[in-house]
Amino acid sequence: MHCRIAARALTAAAALVGAFILPAATARGADTLRSWNTGPTKFAVLQFVRDVTTAGGADFVPPGERIAVFSHDGTLCPELPAPVELAFLMDRVKALAPKHPRWKSKEPFRSAIAKDLKRLAAAGTRGIMDLEGGVAAGMSAEEYEETVVHWLEKARNPRLARPYTQCGLLPMLELLDFLRASGFKIYIVVRGDAAFFRPWVENTYGVPPEQVIGSSVKTRYTLRKGTPVLIRRPEVDVLEDGPGRPQAIFRAIGRRPIAAFGNTDADLEMLEWVAGGEGKHLALLVHHTNGGNEFSYDRKGSFGRLDKAWDAARKRGWTIADMTKDWNRFFQKAGK
Amino acid sequence: MHCRIAARALTAAAALVGAFILPAATARGADTLRSWNTGPTKFAVLQFVRDVTTAGGADFVPPGERIAVFSHDGTLCPELPAPVELAFLMDRVKALAPKHPRWKSKEPFRSAIAKDLKRLAAAGTRGIMDLEGGVAAGMSAEEYEETVVHWLEKARNPRLARPYTQCGLLPMLELLDFLRASGFKIYIVVRGDAAFFRPWVENTYGVPPEQVIGSSVKTRYTLRKGTPVLIRRPEVDVLEDGPGRPQAIFRAIGRRPIAAFGNTDADLEMLEWVAGGEGKHLALLVHHTNGGNEFSYDRKGSFGRLDKAWDAARKRGWTIADMTKDWNRFFQKAGK
Repeated sequence: MHCRIAARALTAAAALVGAFILPAATARGADTLRSWNTGPTKFAVLQFVRDVTTAGGADFVPPGERIAVFSHDGTLCPELPAPVELAFLMDRVKALAPKHPRWKSKEPFRSAIAKDLKRLAAAGTRGIMDLEGGVAAGMSAEEYEETVVHWLEKARNPRLARPYTQCGLLPMLELLDFLRASGFKIYIVVRGDAAFFRPWVENTYGVPPEQVIGSSVKTRYTLRKGTPVLIRRPEVDVLEDGPGRPQAIFRAIGRRPIAAFGNTDADLEMLEWVAGGEGKHLALLVHHTNGGNEFSYDRKGSFGRLDKAWDAARKRGWTIADMTKDWNRFFQKAGK
Repeated sequence: MHCRIAARALTAAAALVGAFILPAATARGADTLRSWNTGPTKFAVLQFVRDVTTAGGADFVPPGERIAVFSHDGTLCPELPAPVELAFLMDRVKALAPKHPRWKSKEPFRSAIAKDLKRLAAAGTRGIMDLEGGVAAGMSAEEYEETVVHWLEKARNPRLARPYTQCGLLPMLELLDFLRASGFKIYIVVRGDAAFFRPWVENTYGVPPEQVIGSSVKTRYTLRKGTPVLIRRPEVDVLEDGPGRPQAIFRAIGRRPIAAFGNTDADLEMLEWVAGGEGKHLALLVHHTNGGNEFSYDRKGSFGRLDKAWDAARKRGWTIADMTKDWNRFFQKAGK
């Protein structure tokens, strides 16, 4: 612990020195990352990007191989009081419950009707995907997309009192911009249904729909009134849970990314896999320490338990972004 | 039939007129597509690209939504005497057979040992994926990739007497270039294991590994000598067969592409789905009519049976590229 603090102090000193010797790309990063306080965390990010983008340097990575993966809930935006997809599903289940009397006695629908977040959290990704299968079975892919977009227009994070599409954590939005400007291709990794996120992540995070990796329900290809459509079925197709994240990422893109960003134990294997690749890498954990501006939780968590991943990060020297120490702003002005 | 020919003659006349009035983007296309003969097929491609790229035009599609999907075997390269992945698998099975005495009496390994292409074709994608599972079980993702790359260095298409990485059909390579220059994002859709294609499609077709959509085997995430790796298991994960192509594409990218290129019945649903989307689209079938320069087959085919998709193309007015009529060169000079 004392060593760790000493090491941090040294790195902080290096950061101050570094401010005078970092090249142009890093200067741009320092400028873009305005919501990040000067210190070892910000320096680690700048140093990583400088190393992999310096042509001729020992750690140079060609642009096409600069792949970064970001967990969504709790990393790019708050996941409390409930992750955005679960908020959507609870609303949909409530609206459709009169037509599905059996849901009252069938999990996870019963917990969704009761808004029992504890049980829903325990049901995990399988629970989310069972709900996705239930609330949108028979819809075409396009109809489901419209339903999501329509819901997002009115839905609000109740604690933050703003649309979910404006809940992106500002320091993380800056980080996305900085990485993109540095030639990175960014993927968002979600636990639930990728189809839920794809219609809106481009506007919110600048990430196109095809760069979302997540679970899926099975679909049936058919002609409806002569038009070929994909109809959602109430069955899970691919289930992307925590330990399966490296597989899910590899299945989708066929490469090991060089940077990974997460905030819970569900991100442990993803961070470990990326940190274990050859060459330079960045594995960063967001630590929710700011109950005033956002939320505060770690080892016990609820949706976002940060326990094993926290120990791994400390043990292996992954970068930890402590919201209170490392960030000075949390959200864009509402309505922007 | 007569109507069809008359319509073609009219389109050909339009093409000649069009040559004088097409804007800059199309002029670039005409220049890039040098191996395509002037005529209705080339004109249909140029017209489509002009329509979706003309800002302010009724059919304009923003660059991010210009997605094109290409089937691999038989569309981007010859699939005879055997598709490249099957050639690899037959060689691997042969090399490993002494260690697996049971393969002699177990399909599809038995047919692979006997190089019985007819039976292997009948075993379809499931057969290919069973072989992929068998020949590389226990390998890490990286080891498998090395095996593929190593094999490709020496392997040759026996009829064309050139490396598989130099078997790309030149007119299709030009088409890839033209579409990319026109703001398209290109995906290659394969029947078999996406992991087989990903290590080499970027050099061969300019398509990065993450833009390959295909089947996969299950992998196991584990630490090997402290290094996190994905180990291939002898089990199919996602199976991407013909009728499932729209689902596979939608699972991977969450959108309906606006252009699709295929050559067999396995591409029927993909072409139909793309042709049935809203707005302008291009659905193109490659017709193998040139036994002298390449291969000649259609309704009976072997790996590439073009029967139902041929009828659909004729009935619905999809574009057909007849190798003999529409192309004047087939391959790049060997060794280039």
